[in-house]
Amino acid sequence: MELKELRRAVYEANMQLPRRGLVTYTWGNVSGIDRASGLVVIKPSGVRYEDLTPENLVVLDLDGRKVEGDLNPSSDTATHLELYRAFSALGGIVHTHSPFAVAWAQAGEDIPCYGTTHADYFYGPIPCARTLTKEELDKGYERYTGRVIIETFFDRDIEPTAVPGVICHSHGPFAWGKDAAQAVYHAAVLEEVAKMAAYTRMVKPDAAPAPQHILDKHYLRKHGPGAYYGQTNNR
Amino acid sequence: MELKELRRAVYEANMQLPRRGLVTYTWGNVSGIDRASGLVVIKPSGVRYEDLTPENLVVLDLDGRKVEGDLNPSSDTATHLELYRAFSALGGIVHTHSPFAVAWAQAGEDIPCYGTTHADYFYGPIPCARTLTKEELDKGYERYTGRVIIETFFDRDIEPTAVPGVICHSHGPFAWGKDAAQAVYHAAVLEEVAKMAAYTRMVKPDAAPAPQHILDKHYLRKHGPGAYYGQTNNR
Amino acid sequence: MELKELRRAVYEANMQLPRRGLVTYTWGNVSGIDRASGLVVIKPSGVRYEDLTPENLVVLDLDGRKVEGDLNPSSDTATHLELYRAFSALGGIVHTHSPFAVAWAQAGEDIPCYGTTHADYFYGPIPCARTLTKEELDKGYERYTGRVIIETFFDRDIEPTAVPGVICHSHGPFAWGKDAAQAVYHAAVLEEVAKMAAYTRMVKPDAAPAPQHILDKHYLRKHGPGAYYGQTNNR
Amino acid sequence: MELKELRRAVYEANMQLPRRGLVTYTWGNVSGIDRASGLVVIKPSGVRYEDLTPENLVVLDLDGRKVEGDLNPSSDTATHLELYRAFSALGGIVHTHSPFAVAWAQAGEDIPCYGTTHADYFYGPIPCARTLTKEELDKGYERYTGRVIIETFFDRDIEPTAVPGVICHSHGPFAWGKDAAQAVYHAAVLEEVAKMAAYTRMVKPDAAPAPQHILDKHYLRKHGPGAYYGQTNNR
Repeated sequence: MELKELRRAVYEANMQLPRRGLVTYTWGNVSGIDRASGLVVIKPSGVRYEDLTPENLVVLDLDGRKVEGDLNPSSDTATHLELYRAFSALGGIVHTHSPFAVAWAQAGEDIPCYGTTHADYFYGPIPCARTLTKEELDKGYERYTGRVIIETFFDRDIEPTAVPGVICHSHGPFAWGKDAAQAVYHAAVLEEVAKMAAYTRMVKPDAAPAPQHILDKHYLRKHGPGAYYGQTNNR
Repeated sequence: MELKELRRAVYEANMQLPRRGLVTYTWGNVSGIDRASGLVVIKPSGVRYEDLTPENLVVLDLDGRKVEGDLNPSSDTATHLELYRAFSALGGIVHTHSPFAVAWAQAGEDIPCYGTTHADYFYGPIPCARTLTKEELDKGYERYTGRVIIETFFDRDIEPTAVPGVICHSHGPFAWGKDAAQAVYHAAVLEEVAKMAAYTRMVKPDAAPAPQHILDKHYLRKHGPGAYYGQTNNR
Repeated sequence: MELKELRRAVYEANMQLPRRGLVTYTWGNVSGIDRASGLVVIKPSGVRYEDLTPENLVVLDLDGRKVEGDLNPSSDTATHLELYRAFSALGGIVHTHSPFAVAWAQAGEDIPCYGTTHADYFYGPIPCARTLTKEELDKGYERYTGRVIIETFFDRDIEPTAVPGVICHSHGPFAWGKDAAQAVYHAAVLEEVAKMAAYTRMVKPDAAPAPQHILDKHYLRKHGPGAYYGQTNNR
Repeated sequence: MELKELRRAVYEANMQLPRRGLVTYTWGNVSGIDRASGLVVIKPSGVRYEDLTPENLVVLDLDGRKVEGDLNPSSDTATHLELYRAFSALGGIVHTHSPFAVAWAQAGEDIPCYGTTHADYFYGPIPCARTLTKEELDKGYERYTGRVIIETFFDRDIEPTAVPGVICHSHGPFAWGKDAAQAVYHAAVLEEVAKMAAYTRMVKPDAAPAPQHILDKHYLRKHGPGAYYGQTNNR
């Protein structure tokens, strides 16, 4: 992929955040990676969406060295880079403060898999990564945010492509996908699923997760070799 | 009815879903049937609403054989067909993942008939159909989803024209009507009623359903021979 | 006031309902009265807002005899007429199924006066009128809906100009004002106040009403001889 | 700053309130101060936003004497003036009845600092100022509203620039900033944070505030000499 094309794709994905109602002011950022060159394109920090252009995005290598761009990259850049290094299937990452996902993060609970809307995209609960310790925070807040996400997926043996998002305790969601557009798509689904789960609690505080065989069915009719949702077997 | 006319009606009904805020992305589908010819027109699977046209809808017979169309029909087609076969009064069916209806489905509870907004359209609680067993699911998920809905209405002796919708445990709502447009109308009412019922629980977790004589009155002033709402006695 | 002018005012007030998000489909109606002639103008039953014109509104006298118009008046007409006859200060009345007001009606509780937003317009709790008995309902549902509202205000010694709205158990809100426009304004405030009260319960289920001296102050700085809000002493 | 420029800035800030969904009807007001001249520009009372112009704003000195303008200033003017006199860092103040902030005010609780969205802007809980006594209210409601806010910040040793907002018991929020635009920005953040905190309670009624070291980190990466968010070290 040409860098220009990646800039355009990451720009378009960033602009989806306000259009989808996922961000207030500048509270969100999307990045994308070209795995061939190892270059990452990311939103500059604190820039308003109406001032964003493909050209003012920042280009970095996977060690965080700036390759192109006059502006500072997103303050969450170190988190993105950790995730790209650990999870090789990721082509795009998004961070938002969308309100229902934040509510679950603030509650410090996994988002339970209450139903098929969730299971169509996330194969099991959306995990809540633990709070950073003071020591981790002093060593590098954003870097350790990424490392604690990775720890969560490793320790709980979760495949990041099967559960393309996470909520960080007291903070908010990260979501990812095969590219920047799919990362935003998953961030939107995560927020919708977080909303439905909160409403489920409103209606019935002790609601139970859906039975495993229903979740298996829904996930697998959209994903993997037996998928039959949509117009191809590989969405 | 000409097939072309049915395609147009089903297309218009599908397009109402995003306009009414009932779907996110591609999460919903509407079908309509011409009872004379037994032909069903339904949304193709996974196609975005902005790409939908009357021409790319799929035409099937009641046994699910494709009559016209290049695309795969909605993955929920088998559910629609079961319902058309069992409930002869149905002219249109819609499935959505509208969030408040999903919340009640995820809670696994009937939506109680708390008041007259509900009773104007649904004569009694909106039933929550049970979860499929693993065996049913293996035999045919979408088909058995339909069968369990039918079982619910038969076992509880509910008339599908008096309660034009259902929620499926851990999944979401189906609604229907005399044609595709009325099915969508009922899906919108179902979501509004589900929202009001959730808010009622927010205000008073142990709220009681409305008294039967109020519900009778409201349903019957809009439906049946003594109806006097609107500009005719038969809306 | 000329009848043409009243038609125009009632038409404009009706059209505010969808603009303010207070109605879904046709679920609401506004009327206005010219006290000099005793003529009432009201929305026709079941007509969509996009099809409404000043000319297709229905004109009635206070006994419910149609004076002008080809369409049936709102099915709630008898309620409006009861209120106009009992409360001489009313110049306009509105009925909606706005969702938070309905939630309190379905919960069967007065909307507590939790704060100053409420007290600026409603001097005390917004009362919940009791359910009609089967006998009242059989004698005339809409007429007795009005009578039970009147009973509520008489029995509890509430001044209808000081509390310009009510919620009817298992049903929804009615609001009123010196004219049709102010009735809609009060219906919008009632919904906003119902929403804030529901959110208050979400945050703190056992929240207490605001102290009386705060409520007195807020109501009286906007109403009566010592009012000092706005650009005149008589809003 | 020229007075004309201040009028323009206060006008623009007022117009942000309806655009950001922070006000219903006329329920809100913004003021700004020019510290050099001691002149305050504020919204006139009860004027609709669509009728507002830079020219019909009211200009006062810090003692509340009108310097320019034909209209009555906002009924909350005395609160604004108290705050400007006590907190010298304030360049703009806003009052709204935004619904989630009102809900917390009506609950009579501080908005807990549940997470980083809150901590990015408010260094600790958003305090709930106590109810006025009857005596304070009789001496001057709006003036004492300001004094009780000031008392809250003094008694609890809160720096008004570190916590740029407050909720007043049974009433609603005030927010402030270095100028009118930043005051509105903080009012919007306060409402968003109040919403997330209410949703957190919906999901988990006994949720705990975020650990102090996370809050320190988030506030300080945006504020003070070590800040690194955005494109300068001084946002």
